[in-house]
Amino acid sequence: MKPAKDRKTEILAVGSEMLTPHFQDTNSLFLTERLNDLGIDVHFKTIVGDTWENLSLAMQQAFDRSSLVIVTGGLGPTKDDRTREVLASVLGKKLIFKEALLQKIEKRFARRRMNMPAVNKKQAYIIESSTVLENKNGTAPGLWIDTVSNTIILLPGPPHEMRPMFESDVWPRLQTLKKHHIFRGVIKTAGLTESRIESYMEDIYPKIQDVQLTTLACPGQIELHLKGTSKESLSTAKQKVDHATKLICDVLDEGVYTTKGEELEEVVGKYLKKKHQTLAVAESCTGGYLGHRITNVPGSSNYFLHGVLAYNNKAKTDLLGVSPNNIEKFGAVSPQVAKEMAAGIRERAGADYGLSITGIAGPSGGTKDKPVGLVYTALASEKEVFIKKNLFLGNRNAVKFQSSQKALDMLRRYLLHMSKT
Amino acid sequence: MKPAKDRKTEILAVGSEMLTPHFQDTNSLFLTERLNDLGIDVHFKTIVGDTWENLSLAMQQAFDRSSLVIVTGGLGPTKDDRTREVLASVLGKKLIFKEALLQKIEKRFARRRMNMPAVNKKQAYIIESSTVLENKNGTAPGLWIDTVSNTIILLPGPPHEMRPMFESDVWPRLQTLKKHHIFRGVIKTAGLTESRIESYMEDIYPKIQDVQLTTLACPGQIELHLKGTSKESLSTAKQKVDHATKLICDVLDEGVYTTKGEELEEVVGKYLKKKHQTLAVAESCTGGYLGHRITNVPGSSNYFLHGVLAYNNKAKTDLLGVSPNNIEKFGAVSPQVAKEMAAGIRERAGADYGLSITGIAGPSGGTKDKPVGLVYTALASEKEVFIKKNLFLGNRNAVKFQSSQKALDMLRRYLLHMSKT
Repeated sequence: MKPAKDRKTEILAVGSEMLTPHFQDTNSLFLTERLNDLGIDVHFKTIVGDTWENLSLAMQQAFDRSSLVIVTGGLGPTKDDRTREVLASVLGKKLIFKEALLQKIEKRFARRRMNMPAVNKKQAYIIESSTVLENKNGTAPGLWIDTVSNTIILLPGPPHEMRPMFESDVWPRLQTLKKHHIFRGVIKTAGLTESRIESYMEDIYPKIQDVQLTTLACPGQIELHLKGTSKESLSTAKQKVDHATKLICDVLDEGVYTTKGEELEEVVGKYLKKKHQTLAVAESCTGGYLGHRITNVPGSSNYFLHGVLAYNNKAKTDLLGVSPNNIEKFGAVSPQVAKEMAAGIRERAGADYGLSITGIAGPSGGTKDKPVGLVYTALASEKEVFIKKNLFLGNRNAVKFQSSQKALDMLRRYLLHMSKT
Repeated sequence: MKPAKDRKTEILAVGSEMLTPHFQDTNSLFLTERLNDLGIDVHFKTIVGDTWENLSLAMQQAFDRSSLVIVTGGLGPTKDDRTREVLASVLGKKLIFKEALLQKIEKRFARRRMNMPAVNKKQAYIIESSTVLENKNGTAPGLWIDTVSNTIILLPGPPHEMRPMFESDVWPRLQTLKKHHIFRGVIKTAGLTESRIESYMEDIYPKIQDVQLTTLACPGQIELHLKGTSKESLSTAKQKVDHATKLICDVLDEGVYTTKGEELEEVVGKYLKKKHQTLAVAESCTGGYLGHRITNVPGSSNYFLHGVLAYNNKAKTDLLGVSPNNIEKFGAVSPQVAKEMAAGIRERAGADYGLSITGIAGPSGGTKDKPVGLVYTALASEKEVFIKKNLFLGNRNAVKFQSSQKALDMLRRYLLHMSKT
């Protein structure tokens, strides 16, 4: 057995489908997060198919370099599923038939008024001197095996079987390997660029050295993920994250829309619900994407009244009351039209707020004066209309996302100010 | 060197970020597809961080078990990027400075009016007796190394650098390893369940044994991916796929909406464009998702006139002319209201077709009579209105997707019949 400090952790995902261009191993993301929560880092991830030779080779090499190895997949009833058999062979251990397991599997089928197919019998075999991990959501039991130099955990591949098994049967047992306490936080921002965040945070980096910071950036939204670690207690880890979160939120100020993991549309929805206010939208180039995001939030019918997808000019004049003169004079993509769209939808829907978007999503339709990515967003309240000119980069989908993000963020910032005054 | 039949292929993705819960290796999907196109299967995928020890270990084991190893990532200018250095050490080879490479990197910065940072100098070092693969989209050159027992290909991690380099510099060189010709096809279906497809295809499975079939299924859409292989020629591989495609399309009939890889909304758009006809939509529970999908297609402004997101009842009566009596009598989620929404939007927009969706997306709002997932979709043409009652499974997003899919598919099938008569 290697000394404790040399111990490594590895995830081995088994399944030939994950070696095609179509499927990816996603179980390892969940497993990594939960292992990290125990202070256990993952050092290798391997993906291997169901052939005896390759699977056996991958297992040998994994056991050689890593003391903790989590193997997922290949526990099903078909001939292709041979993880259990290969593992027994690699470890030089016997497979033992367990009558009690067979009965459980048969019962599972009986509950669905089916006879157990003969192939499922092999799932009642376990590796000698292993511990069975119960599968509450499928027929394949998991296994926990301690050898002289390795801890090996065998889990089923389907996420809806693997995750509950991990939480109920693996997580408690892994506590003995726990290296330190971990607390995670996330700060989500809108309306800030990466370089702007960098410059704001320059001064506080030295003060938050005790948390690990990961930045996830896409145009229109930047998330800061924080991880605090403590050998003493969870509350110490939490204190570190809370301290860093406070410092970061202070400098990023209104750029931060949540520290609770919500989506921007959820935050906007919460404000509206709290104030008993309502919203209507008028979309041109986003074609429904803004409404789609708003209505992704359960309960949005409490504040979202209606929307108009005014893709052509006739709809802009007929349904929103935009002046045909303005469309002719300034074009459909103009601050004047954005303003009239927002005010028009607000008034006609009888809503407290109207949001509008008009722009050029591309790839064609751009001119020198009005290039692809030029988008006007507007917010109408009872008293006034705010208009923003935006120049977004990226493809059609990226422009649609950034446009909807900007419109939502205008409303969020407005509601934030309202609640402050 | 191992005998040719034992040769294996492996992809090694380098980067500590891919061992966190946040990032995944996606390069390997692209590489697998392109290797498959040459008849080369991938046998292992490994993900390893940037530490010298682990990277070195992973390389040694990869070279030991696989003759062709593609390594991606870790070629950047920072201290963390050490793939080049570790590889040289593992192979026992020297790193050699190339003045010409340095000049190229410097020029790249000069074009952007910047001075090359000192750290980038290390990217001008290559492993002795390797071939440089030019990076047209970044500063890190790739490397091709043939040893006694391995072919090792080093590529940069960013996909926009890796992919063009693979296509221009790696793909032509790999032709010598080409095992057979591959041709791919895809059949996309809507409105069919997996079990229905199974039963339709039962008789033709024996006739299409010479192609490899992979099914990608999500509620509302099932795709059949076909792969034909030939040792002789690409046209023989294509013939196999074409033959199987014809047999499958014959039995799945109108369930197939494309064999060209398009999205359903693209197919509907093509029909409309060809017929110079127009479309308008009235959405309730999808809240804009149908309009969003339709307008994801570039050029959709040619046939998409406008949409109404009639989330509340007032919008249904005011903007679509739905009778308040019907809403009261049958409820907003009813065939009567769906019918009036479709007819109303069609008439008011002056469109050839009107599509409507009204239903309960959940998670709340369901009753015993009208459960979550109950959705009525309707299509109005000049002559008639078709209404479908659907009961979709899944969460809010899944219900929204299936609803939009059903509405689009109703229109597709109608247009298909029109073009047949």
